[in-house]
Amino acid sequence: MIDAHCHSLTRDWTHVDAPAGPSWRRCFTEGDDPRVLAEVPALLGYRRFLAALADRLDAPRDEAALVSARDALARADPAGYLRRLLTDAGVERLLVDTGFDGPAALPLPDLARLAGLPVDEIVRIESVAEAVLRDGVDAARFADAVEERLEAAVAGGAVGFKSVAAYRVGLSLPAPSPGEARRAIDRLDRAAHGRRLADPVVVALVVWRAVAVAARHRLPLQFHTGFGDPDVTLPTADPALLTPLLRDRRAEGCPVVLLHCYPYVREAAYLAATYPDTYLDLSLTLPLAAPGAARLVAEALAMCPATRLIAASDGHSYPEMHWWGAVVWRRALSDALDREVAGLDPAAAVAVAAGVLGGNARRLHRLERSPAERGTLDA
Amino acid sequence: MIDAHCHSLTRDWTHVDAPAGPSWRRCFTEGDDPRVLAEVPALLGYRRFLAALADRLDAPRDEAALVSARDALARADPAGYLRRLLTDAGVERLLVDTGFDGPAALPLPDLARLAGLPVDEIVRIESVAEAVLRDGVDAARFADAVEERLEAAVAGGAVGFKSVAAYRVGLSLPAPSPGEARRAIDRLDRAAHGRRLADPVVVALVVWRAVAVAARHRLPLQFHTGFGDPDVTLPTADPALLTPLLRDRRAEGCPVVLLHCYPYVREAAYLAATYPDTYLDLSLTLPLAAPGAARLVAEALAMCPATRLIAASDGHSYPEMHWWGAVVWRRALSDALDREVAGLDPAAAVAVAAGVLGGNARRLHRLERSPAERGTLDA
Amino acid sequence: MIDAHCHSLTRDWTHVDAPAGPSWRRCFTEGDDPRVLAEVPALLGYRRFLAALADRLDAPRDEAALVSARDALARADPAGYLRRLLTDAGVERLLVDTGFDGPAALPLPDLARLAGLPVDEIVRIESVAEAVLRDGVDAARFADAVEERLEAAVAGGAVGFKSVAAYRVGLSLPAPSPGEARRAIDRLDRAAHGRRLADPVVVALVVWRAVAVAARHRLPLQFHTGFGDPDVTLPTADPALLTPLLRDRRAEGCPVVLLHCYPYVREAAYLAATYPDTYLDLSLTLPLAAPGAARLVAEALAMCPATRLIAASDGHSYPEMHWWGAVVWRRALSDALDREVAGLDPAAAVAVAAGVLGGNARRLHRLERSPAERGTLDA
Repeated sequence: MIDAHCHSLTRDWTHVDAPAGPSWRRCFTEGDDPRVLAEVPALLGYRRFLAALADRLDAPRDEAALVSARDALARADPAGYLRRLLTDAGVERLLVDTGFDGPAALPLPDLARLAGLPVDEIVRIESVAEAVLRDGVDAARFADAVEERLEAAVAGGAVGFKSVAAYRVGLSLPAPSPGEARRAIDRLDRAAHGRRLADPVVVALVVWRAVAVAARHRLPLQFHTGFGDPDVTLPTADPALLTPLLRDRRAEGCPVVLLHCYPYVREAAYLAATYPDTYLDLSLTLPLAAPGAARLVAEALAMCPATRLIAASDGHSYPEMHWWGAVVWRRALSDALDREVAGLDPAAAVAVAAGVLGGNARRLHRLERSPAERGTLDA
Repeated sequence: MIDAHCHSLTRDWTHVDAPAGPSWRRCFTEGDDPRVLAEVPALLGYRRFLAALADRLDAPRDEAALVSARDALARADPAGYLRRLLTDAGVERLLVDTGFDGPAALPLPDLARLAGLPVDEIVRIESVAEAVLRDGVDAARFADAVEERLEAAVAGGAVGFKSVAAYRVGLSLPAPSPGEARRAIDRLDRAAHGRRLADPVVVALVVWRAVAVAARHRLPLQFHTGFGDPDVTLPTADPALLTPLLRDRRAEGCPVVLLHCYPYVREAAYLAATYPDTYLDLSLTLPLAAPGAARLVAEALAMCPATRLIAASDGHSYPEMHWWGAVVWRRALSDALDREVAGLDPAAAVAVAAGVLGGNARRLHRLERSPAERGTLDA
Repeated sequence: MIDAHCHSLTRDWTHVDAPAGPSWRRCFTEGDDPRVLAEVPALLGYRRFLAALADRLDAPRDEAALVSARDALARADPAGYLRRLLTDAGVERLLVDTGFDGPAALPLPDLARLAGLPVDEIVRIESVAEAVLRDGVDAARFADAVEERLEAAVAGGAVGFKSVAAYRVGLSLPAPSPGEARRAIDRLDRAAHGRRLADPVVVALVVWRAVAVAARHRLPLQFHTGFGDPDVTLPTADPALLTPLLRDRRAEGCPVVLLHCYPYVREAAYLAATYPDTYLDLSLTLPLAAPGAARLVAEALAMCPATRLIAASDGHSYPEMHWWGAVVWRRALSDALDREVAGLDPAAAVAVAAGVLGGNARRLHRLERSPAERGTLDA
């Protein structure tokens, strides 16, 4: 499996035990309130996770006892424990969005060394734009400066881009005219937007520049869609709002990945079935809705080609999340394909699973190429 | 089971037989047209209901014959028949929204006496506002007058509030500024709104005052969401539109219950998983979509903590509706929990079911307290 | 089975084999890009189709080999092959939307002769309006001219109307005032709209005139809803946006059919359960989401009366599409009804299936009447 959308570990990932409950609880909800975290043990999906991890580690299922056993293992041999989980999950490569967690996150070279696996970078475009604003730039130069940094990221080996427009301004992202763009940049409170860019016109401008760079190199642009942040108001994050962009000739050649998608899985599968170069992963959806995972994967595969579905964990902070995402994906996919005996012989079912778990991402992110060649097109 | 959202019986509930078909048919559709009522027998869920009730009463499954048998039983011994149904359903307490059915409804003390069960009141806030308008009030005093009545309701033992903003103005409910509120009240046609308040600003004003009262006493505010009235236009009743309210610091401490939710069950489950003090019941959804009930409960429990899901029947008019809601809930919950053997041992599954069927509502509505103490906070 | 929403065959339907893959692939996606067509073999539903057709024709499952065998059969005896498929599917009548495919489509009399079945016409109202514009009409006369042509269609035996407003302007269709209508027609670029009418006010005007004609004759107006065209942006095609029209007294007597509905199946089922004279078919949804068909039919029947659900294939171009739509419908319906043993005895289940597969459409489209009598009301 290639984990096509995940995040790095926190630097102190070997330590999960905490007075208010294990710190991995925050990976099982999008809420950030202590009262929400206190109710994570009442999630049926979390109960499944505890049971599955306890079985794997040969540890007790009780949360506190499991956490003790896990912390002991992780601290005794961090690399060994991490590799044990990744091997068990069959993960062989990680594509990591680096726009999350800031300085607390393990740098990618450290992660790669520790995991003993290739680790590639997905660049969050709003973070790049915020860095440009923080560094100071003339309004007239802003968009070009963003584009230059995105180009530099490709030259440096990045395997794709990601946008979080969904929870900044929603997914209605008409390409601004040059005049609109200039006026929007002029009225930006740059200091504030250096921290958190949330102007609809400027975000759309950044997205369309990223589309241009992505199309130039045939590297994908991932969009956060649906749930996944307490800031999001769901209807504005419906992936179907991206339809005008997917249809737009100016986006021709830019592969788009619809991340997460919950609750709009059916919508996303329709888009992936209808527009070229459109993919969906259900990354955060599967571990957070684990008891419904088989149904959600089946809904996706009922509508979109198996070549358009991509597995990912959205794991972050603790390696159990990467492991759990992979475990849930494998089980759900196996369940969905088991029902397809009428149309798929066993060899064909294995080929479909291999594509969803890795082949599709390998092709889409051009992973077979060396970093220096990744962004170059064939003549 | 605590039936956490239901309505009273009609005064003539012992009589269901009627020339155009049994009068309980109107409990199986949100439509009010005679042609819609005539097609209720073609609902698979209604067929399930007839079969289940016939088995329970040892009566024929044929609609007319069953109604005859039922009417004979109900009239021979109203209290006995009512208690037989409630006992069979395991219902031990009713939380009744009194804003429905007007003078045709049995008053709560009569209902409690007849049922032999504690009955508590949920106060519909739009009905309170309409009463204030009917009684005549100075525009400048309107909001305070509403708040005073809501306070009086708490002092009188009410266990929560309910809003029907969804089918009056939709669930986009920004808190109006004092100036907006005053202008909106000034332009109200008060005579008309004494009958049916449907001004977006005034409804939002009433909601936010209710939020304040509810937060002060830690009593929940229920919102009708999704389907449930021929007046509703679904997308404006998507519970996700309440996200800004759920995130708003001014709503801190006000527990919110998302009622019904169909078809937005996944959206509601996400909200309950993400924001503190946010709950969902699926009350009307389960009896009206009984053949899909197991799937809908499974969708909710795939995403939200079991501590955030609350069972209710939305039963009204006839006690068979309270019975059927409870029967469908028990079956659907049992089906959903049966699939969780991987993460739940039998004792844990029973604890989850006990919470959904009663414990969650008991805690949320502070039912362990006496009416006099319910609205007081611990120091 | 009555196929209540389908299209004609292409004139060259006996020939499916083509250099870039069999031409029926375009019936399995709403996309029109060659890259999308190239991925149709990766659709699990397409694999199911190939397997089922191969079994039926006693041919190999491999796509190329199956297409060869099929083309040989179809060309050796076109009428025989067509009738074999329709007989196998149990199709006994076709209701054909003639607003699709233009001159490449087989005229209805030819189709009826070839199939040996009655074939009736559904008239696409936007095509009628475009013809009126192409023929030249005074702005003041436009709406009356449209209405006259719709009346003429009824007199000529049409069994219903269809609107594609969903992917022209969306399903928010307030009835324009006479002044708004006149101004909208005045500003039309008539030459352009003779090709493709996409003005929101003019489309709404055409819809409301069609509603009037349909109500006058009690013939249904079908609305494309949900997915089904690369032009559609899903949220604007949510059938729930038709709620104001369904509630409007001016639409009284006009039966409405919600076509396709994906992903808004639950929404459509609610509308059909709530408003009189409102129906849903899932026509395009079932063959395009065949692996999820049983679940989608179950979702519909969980909420709407069995008298409000209508089977159709949305088949077009190749008769295998009409066959496949019928096959998927039968399987999905059988699966959904099998779960209803608690409420339906076998005879009742057969009656439900007979209604969904034919009886409901027969009644709705007044098919028992002769064409001359169809549009006349009983005294």
